[in-house]
Amino acid sequence: MIAVDWGGSSLRAYRLSDQGTILERRVSAAGVFESSSRPFERALEALIGDWLAAGDASVVMSGMIGSRRGWIEVPYRACPARLDDLAAGRREVRWGGRRAWIIPGLACRSATGAPDVMRGEETQVVGALGELPDPAVICLPGTHTKWVDYTGGTIRGFRTAPTGEIYRLLAEQSSLVGAPATGPVDPVWFAAGLARSDEAGGLLQHLFGVRAAQMTGDLAEDQAASFLSGVLIGHDVREEARPEQPVHLLGDPALTDLYRIALDRRDVRCVLLDPDAAAYGLFALSRAIEAAA
Amino acid sequence: MIAVDWGGSSLRAYRLSDQGTILERRVSAAGVFESSSRPFERALEALIGDWLAAGDASVVMSGMIGSRRGWIEVPYRACPARLDDLAAGRREVRWGGRRAWIIPGLACRSATGAPDVMRGEETQVVGALGELPDPAVICLPGTHTKWVDYTGGTIRGFRTAPTGEIYRLLAEQSSLVGAPATGPVDPVWFAAGLARSDEAGGLLQHLFGVRAAQMTGDLAEDQAASFLSGVLIGHDVREEARPEQPVHLLGDPALTDLYRIALDRRDVRCVLLDPDAAAYGLFALSRAIEAAA
Repeated sequence: MIAVDWGGSSLRAYRLSDQGTILERRVSAAGVFESSSRPFERALEALIGDWLAAGDASVVMSGMIGSRRGWIEVPYRACPARLDDLAAGRREVRWGGRRAWIIPGLACRSATGAPDVMRGEETQVVGALGELPDPAVICLPGTHTKWVDYTGGTIRGFRTAPTGEIYRLLAEQSSLVGAPATGPVDPVWFAAGLARSDEAGGLLQHLFGVRAAQMTGDLAEDQAASFLSGVLIGHDVREEARPEQPVHLLGDPALTDLYRIALDRRDVRCVLLDPDAAAYGLFALSRAIEAAA
Repeated sequence: MIAVDWGGSSLRAYRLSDQGTILERRVSAAGVFESSSRPFERALEALIGDWLAAGDASVVMSGMIGSRRGWIEVPYRACPARLDDLAAGRREVRWGGRRAWIIPGLACRSATGAPDVMRGEETQVVGALGELPDPAVICLPGTHTKWVDYTGGTIRGFRTAPTGEIYRLLAEQSSLVGAPATGPVDPVWFAAGLARSDEAGGLLQHLFGVRAAQMTGDLAEDQAASFLSGVLIGHDVREEARPEQPVHLLGDPALTDLYRIALDRRDVRCVLLDPDAAAYGLFALSRAIEAAA
């Protein structure tokens, strides 16, 4: 089968064997939010036209491709949700003589009724189920970091922090960072930012502190982005970390490592999950769809 | 005398009588951070050349004009600071046959040593001293909102939240707000954002909630900026408001009113200060400089 993890800024495709082993993978920058990605069938054929032509493999996709701005809008399923609920909520798209299924995202509400949404991460969680205890907390760091509660075989709920998006905006376009980051995050200043996130005053005051420290000479301009990263990830983790509750981290290794450092600092045990979980989740969903057909 | 409140994005000048009454005021967009404002003597002459030519009025300036990117860098004075400390820290600039004094900004440190800085707001606080009890908390809402502790005749310390800057970046350039704000803040959605800022989860999660509520149809895209404003000002006020401690608000009336609503909601009594405080502060500083000469 062919698994397609199609997000706002990238398109990742996997070819899997009947046993669910990844045989081949391809990536392109044809994200859903790129106008050059339309029509979507052309972008998909451009990346994996040879796989599609080779036979009647089932094609299952997830991510922003199922959003209002995607190929077809696939309505959110409400939490709590099981693998079978995701499979049941799929929509089909057809082009040429071909077809593919798109998996829905999930919506949930806080105790006070505030909504939250995800598209794509639910599939990654499904792909990681074999590695998870029940219950488990899964953290998927990124542009919009997700904290997912898995319990009783269901995704019960989740919370999102737009930590990556706010980091990029502030690092590149605000008065808070005097010089753009060059190279990787500096571990000393990242740790200083984590420490700051624990002090008195909220996130807003800590963010201004990034600027103030450059004005007073406490912080070099080209280290400011590392300090900022520590402040933001520190606040993200501070809202979610519970000492007795291990966190299962799933995502890009460099970013995941920053979250691991922030969680370590709070004595929270971390478990790293296979970053190919999206492919395994789409494989499992393809099996569920076929079993129900 | 001539009082010049010269910030990053605007230049405000006041002509005052010997008794400290404002006789005339002028504003231009020639902020310190605008390259078209250089050389600074030309921008100043363009706005108030006739006032300068009319006699030997003393000219006193404050704000970003004393920063590293200003006319001359005037080193920060450390808190606690009195009016006389600010006067003593002035630097002189000369052009043609003319001269002006620039007032220093202030720096302070939190209990853990984290630095904070201001330039311009110290002058506004000095101008408001006649209206303040001792001790007092003064809030100056803006791009970088300041919360100032005044006690024993000194500015003892302060905290800054870059609430206005982050609002503008997120409203105009993030994925969190689907449509730009049109018209003034909607009071109902602003209040909903304030309420959200009190719920479980930190600022990051509440910010993502602005996007999520649009995805689920709970919030119209063109109301999202008002909700975002409530979330941000709610968090800013939440860190500083103490029920028994009135807050003296000083700044632009429309923005000050949003802070008043947020403080009212927490049963904090608000006192509105004269928004011309910068002019009165520069007048008082000019008297102090002349008395010491």
